[in-house]
Amino acid sequence: MSATLDADVREKLRQTAVATISAELRRRGYPDMSVDGVHSRVPGSKLVGPARTLRFVAYRPDLSDEHGSGYNAQKQAFDGLRAGDVLVIEARQDPTTGTFGDVLALRAKVLGAAGIVSDGGVRDSAAVADIGIPTFTRSVHPAVLGRRHVPWEKDTTITCGGVAVQPGDIVVGNDDGVVVIPAHLVKEVADAAAEQEKQDAWVAERIAEGNPIEGLFPPAGHWKDEFDKWRESH
Amino acid sequence: MSATLDADVREKLRQTAVATISAELRRRGYPDMSVDGVHSRVPGSKLVGPARTLRFVAYRPDLSDEHGSGYNAQKQAFDGLRAGDVLVIEARQDPTTGTFGDVLALRAKVLGAAGIVSDGGVRDSAAVADIGIPTFTRSVHPAVLGRRHVPWEKDTTITCGGVAVQPGDIVVGNDDGVVVIPAHLVKEVADAAAEQEKQDAWVAERIAEGNPIEGLFPPAGHWKDEFDKWRESH
Amino acid sequence: MSATLDADVREKLRQTAVATISAELRRRGYPDMSVDGVHSRVPGSKLVGPARTLRFVAYRPDLSDEHGSGYNAQKQAFDGLRAGDVLVIEARQDPTTGTFGDVLALRAKVLGAAGIVSDGGVRDSAAVADIGIPTFTRSVHPAVLGRRHVPWEKDTTITCGGVAVQPGDIVVGNDDGVVVIPAHLVKEVADAAAEQEKQDAWVAERIAEGNPIEGLFPPAGHWKDEFDKWRESH
Amino acid sequence: MSATLDADVREKLRQTAVATISAELRRRGYPDMSVDGVHSRVPGSKLVGPARTLRFVAYRPDLSDEHGSGYNAQKQAFDGLRAGDVLVIEARQDPTTGTFGDVLALRAKVLGAAGIVSDGGVRDSAAVADIGIPTFTRSVHPAVLGRRHVPWEKDTTITCGGVAVQPGDIVVGNDDGVVVIPAHLVKEVADAAAEQEKQDAWVAERIAEGNPIEGLFPPAGHWKDEFDKWRESH
Amino acid sequence: MSATLDADVREKLRQTAVATISAELRRRGYPDMSVDGVHSRVPGSKLVGPARTLRFVAYRPDLSDEHGSGYNAQKQAFDGLRAGDVLVIEARQDPTTGTFGDVLALRAKVLGAAGIVSDGGVRDSAAVADIGIPTFTRSVHPAVLGRRHVPWEKDTTITCGGVAVQPGDIVVGNDDGVVVIPAHLVKEVADAAAEQEKQDAWVAERIAEGNPIEGLFPPAGHWKDEFDKWRESH
Amino acid sequence: MSATLDADVREKLRQTAVATISAELRRRGYPDMSVDGVHSRVPGSKLVGPARTLRFVAYRPDLSDEHGSGYNAQKQAFDGLRAGDVLVIEARQDPTTGTFGDVLALRAKVLGAAGIVSDGGVRDSAAVADIGIPTFTRSVHPAVLGRRHVPWEKDTTITCGGVAVQPGDIVVGNDDGVVVIPAHLVKEVADAAAEQEKQDAWVAERIAEGNPIEGLFPPAGHWKDEFDKWRESH
Repeated sequence: MSATLDADVREKLRQTAVATISAELRRRGYPDMSVDGVHSRVPGSKLVGPARTLRFVAYRPDLSDEHGSGYNAQKQAFDGLRAGDVLVIEARQDPTTGTFGDVLALRAKVLGAAGIVSDGGVRDSAAVADIGIPTFTRSVHPAVLGRRHVPWEKDTTITCGGVAVQPGDIVVGNDDGVVVIPAHLVKEVADAAAEQEKQDAWVAERIAEGNPIEGLFPPAGHWKDEFDKWRESH
Repeated sequence: MSATLDADVREKLRQTAVATISAELRRRGYPDMSVDGVHSRVPGSKLVGPARTLRFVAYRPDLSDEHGSGYNAQKQAFDGLRAGDVLVIEARQDPTTGTFGDVLALRAKVLGAAGIVSDGGVRDSAAVADIGIPTFTRSVHPAVLGRRHVPWEKDTTITCGGVAVQPGDIVVGNDDGVVVIPAHLVKEVADAAAEQEKQDAWVAERIAEGNPIEGLFPPAGHWKDEFDKWRESH
Repeated sequence: MSATLDADVREKLRQTAVATISAELRRRGYPDMSVDGVHSRVPGSKLVGPARTLRFVAYRPDLSDEHGSGYNAQKQAFDGLRAGDVLVIEARQDPTTGTFGDVLALRAKVLGAAGIVSDGGVRDSAAVADIGIPTFTRSVHPAVLGRRHVPWEKDTTITCGGVAVQPGDIVVGNDDGVVVIPAHLVKEVADAAAEQEKQDAWVAERIAEGNPIEGLFPPAGHWKDEFDKWRESH
Repeated sequence: MSATLDADVREKLRQTAVATISAELRRRGYPDMSVDGVHSRVPGSKLVGPARTLRFVAYRPDLSDEHGSGYNAQKQAFDGLRAGDVLVIEARQDPTTGTFGDVLALRAKVLGAAGIVSDGGVRDSAAVADIGIPTFTRSVHPAVLGRRHVPWEKDTTITCGGVAVQPGDIVVGNDDGVVVIPAHLVKEVADAAAEQEKQDAWVAERIAEGNPIEGLFPPAGHWKDEFDKWRESH
Repeated sequence: MSATLDADVREKLRQTAVATISAELRRRGYPDMSVDGVHSRVPGSKLVGPARTLRFVAYRPDLSDEHGSGYNAQKQAFDGLRAGDVLVIEARQDPTTGTFGDVLALRAKVLGAAGIVSDGGVRDSAAVADIGIPTFTRSVHPAVLGRRHVPWEKDTTITCGGVAVQPGDIVVGNDDGVVVIPAHLVKEVADAAAEQEKQDAWVAERIAEGNPIEGLFPPAGHWKDEFDKWRESH
Repeated sequence: MSATLDADVREKLRQTAVATISAELRRRGYPDMSVDGVHSRVPGSKLVGPARTLRFVAYRPDLSDEHGSGYNAQKQAFDGLRAGDVLVIEARQDPTTGTFGDVLALRAKVLGAAGIVSDGGVRDSAAVADIGIPTFTRSVHPAVLGRRHVPWEKDTTITCGGVAVQPGDIVVGNDDGVVVIPAHLVKEVADAAAEQEKQDAWVAERIAEGNPIEGLFPPAGHWKDEFDKWRESH
């Protein structure tokens, strides 16, 4: 159902800015892999891991009675998380209710999950922040899930923040937001992004020395030669 | 998977305003069964029938290659329509692309489907209107489905225009828009709405005669007595 | 509480485009008197009359029990309309419910009201159109008022479609939408707008003859002389 | 006009998460009591107190001259605050202007008010934060009130952030946002929420020990027995 | 500055649905050429012609004095239209003001312009419709341009409805909305779209005969053979 | 092309709250000079300087090939910044992509620019914050510019966050957001705002002493006399 993420790749992605990964995805024909409108409220949060998914449908009394109470899909999804997983929730981009709170976040933390992403809200947001598991949401809101949603099913293909997500896709988040890497591209994108970051760092040093952007960002002509030389020796 | 709709109930619903049905649903604890933002561009359009459903996820090149081309879920959904069915499409309320066009609408018409509801757009809208099958959408837009969506699955529970819809729910539309009646409530709601319309028509006659709203809408006191008397004799 | 509208002024305003009135209001320091987002669904509808007002607050069960049932502020407002009045409703720009339907619209029609303006929806929209009273709303929606609102009070100062409205202000609507004229400006604006329309018509004739806009719209130099001459003789 | 808040109840509400209060309100048929879109910019802010209210209408030059200048309704509202009060402002959810600034916030602070809630913006936001009175607003914006509003009346029923508020309702805010408790429910909700928090804390301890959510959140079966036992002895 | 449009290509585009053109643009890597949110209020309107452009900036008193009065860029743009041209206006997608009215529309008509597209509003909309020049706008609104805009410059590259437009691009509109064809693609797209419409018409006939979508839309296998045969003989 | 800013005026503006400047602009007939929706993510950021401008148009493959790659207008704009300049970017208020990142921000910092304002997003937001140049944007987003934009031209009149900006206008930002002062008003506004802040500070002291707002804010009657006396002696 969902892929494990190689420890090296995970570490490489953790060292890489989401912006750099986003650029590499675009180069490969995937410009729309950002989970738009979703952020962490804890500065410096970093998230890497394979997606597990959860889909909600709109609240409706009869469906809520059947599917919303008891050991519903949401509770099963949290109990079923494995170490390193990222739970991604389709909440129809509705900011006007919470989609999980401190108790479920704690369960995810205890299981070693890497984080939670929801295009709806988080409730008990201060308590959730204290638990220390990275969470990226569209809003904070005190209302319970049932104000707007019925938890429906887990581990299917969903849309979160405008991006299609499948179990096993790799989710990466930082202060800029969240991107999703299709599973089959993860190694290639991780390598290319790490390489790009080296170039960006080298360029930044040149900029810091007072050089203009022209011809340097990205390196062309003599700057390209200099960079290639430097790259060979590092 | 989906209910057939008794011919008497269908006819009763066809004679009843969507506004009246909406009020009866609210009385039974279902205030949120309207497909918000969705309308017909053909004045006087009327729609009644059991729901068949279709779910899209966000466009993504790899998923589109696998699921969007060939005989995809959308095409299967249209080919699978039965006489009287209403196809309801979850397009994530995105107005910026079409979700079906004239060829698919024609197929639905040939199969005797009762109509199509989508919380996305319709393309080739003039040709679709000419075909004569009732269609209720959020927008008209020339772009093909693939600008925003990949057709994913059919005949599951979806959310359309903010309302959860299951195959077999009864969908009713007119100039006001579209409401969804949970299958188990349809007979009760159809009967109550038809009865309510009789009362509303009687009240309207009294208003037309120059009587004030006070005590008459809804009928109370002596107006209630008069209405009950009239109702017995009709 | 609310002004009567002189028959001559009413007729003058009826002959005048809302766009022209809007321009005259702007010239006098009132650029924001349009009820934004509100239109008639009946092409060619025209509305002129003094405002009566109705304010809703958000739905809440206890307030609805006390103020929403029985002979509430909404019903009193409709019963209290006089010939020529325009009822203006503050519905917090919420398109997701109706704010009046056919029975109340019929009452307004019987009383000779000039029309109804609401920054929420109208339900039973086809029946309301048949009644023939001009109605300008933000949306059509089948749900009853109580989905979102409690009728609160009438004939106070409200905000409708982003414009403050007082009882006695003059409301004018056509295919472009609705503007509100503060009571103390109505005569002045009506006269100026009628005069402006004469000039615009004269300019349009010159444009139709093939003359360029330059110097003609508005008339300057020799065009100004020609217009002044024409104006004197008409 | 407005209720005083029992010191015990106030303290109990202060100790309770807004999310828990929101859930208790929903259980009693009040799912829509959150002031949507309104937050404090100071992490950890907490607000409890009875509502005082202030209503704005849209800016209009003549109304502004009469009602906006001098000792207007806004200034009267601030001067009239009592120790413990929360001023709640209806600003039509418009983020594009300030609705109060540092001088008025200071006046509220000096009077011992518990806080300010507005569904518009706050200006001089850094200075307001320094004053130390809890403020929950939709936005920060430098423009003065008069860009969009005329202060109209105080201590009437208003709508703020989509929720109807009456003077004397109890307003509670924290990092999640703000909820409004109808005055007649405050004791019952405060007690139930405090009780619920005890259960949630006990559940959280069990989750922290590694137990799954299933059957535990909320406690059922043997977990229910264990919790009841624990609850009796605490 | 702007291209003339070959009469044959113009006629071909006039015969072709905007939806078909949109699909052909997407096939060539241009999925985002629709002017989103812009429609004609006159059913059956059709628009084809090379773009002329006009850019507005936000209203500001000093800039309005210098650039908004007199023979401004807007008036120059209208006076400068040639037979067959389409004027495309960047109005920052603001629906709350008009961007042209009946006098300017009449000037465009007299000059033989093919139409007007604006991502703002049209004022005097009924009069404009009577003039008979196709106009596609985001809204109808009575306010004058100066409520929100200052006309700035003409015949530069602009963004209208989310799509970049250059003078000489070919603009095509119908009931679905408006698309823009980059000048260098127009012949190729017109030919391909006309060809595609032949296939779609043939497919529609087969659908009308009762054949399923499977394998037929688009034609594959034996249907492909049949279509190719038919195509050769027509 | 753009004005230099007198060091005294710059310092005066730096000492003045944006809210006070906004009020002085409104008094002079400029109520709409705030860059709506744009904020710094670094609390306490302060920005003062003359505007340099950059305009983007919507992404389109052919325009991107010609104008987006190589030493494009964006790169030229950053390389061309002078000490004290503020770069203001028109990104059509689109939050779903970055409009500059850490390398360009570093270049601006090295050149001594006063800051960057964009009504789009910033990418690599944490790195940009570390660089320490004040940046005010609508959003943070990881995607590159090319997801939505083509850099088009620099140092022309643009619209950013709903306000028209010309090179040489003075831009001031703090925690409340950003305002633009037309170049010809800067000295007058800076002086008046500084003077107003003195009065506000004096009023705040009086409020802190427990005096009511009535008659004091703004000072009238005896308070006016007292303030005038104090003002003379300071």
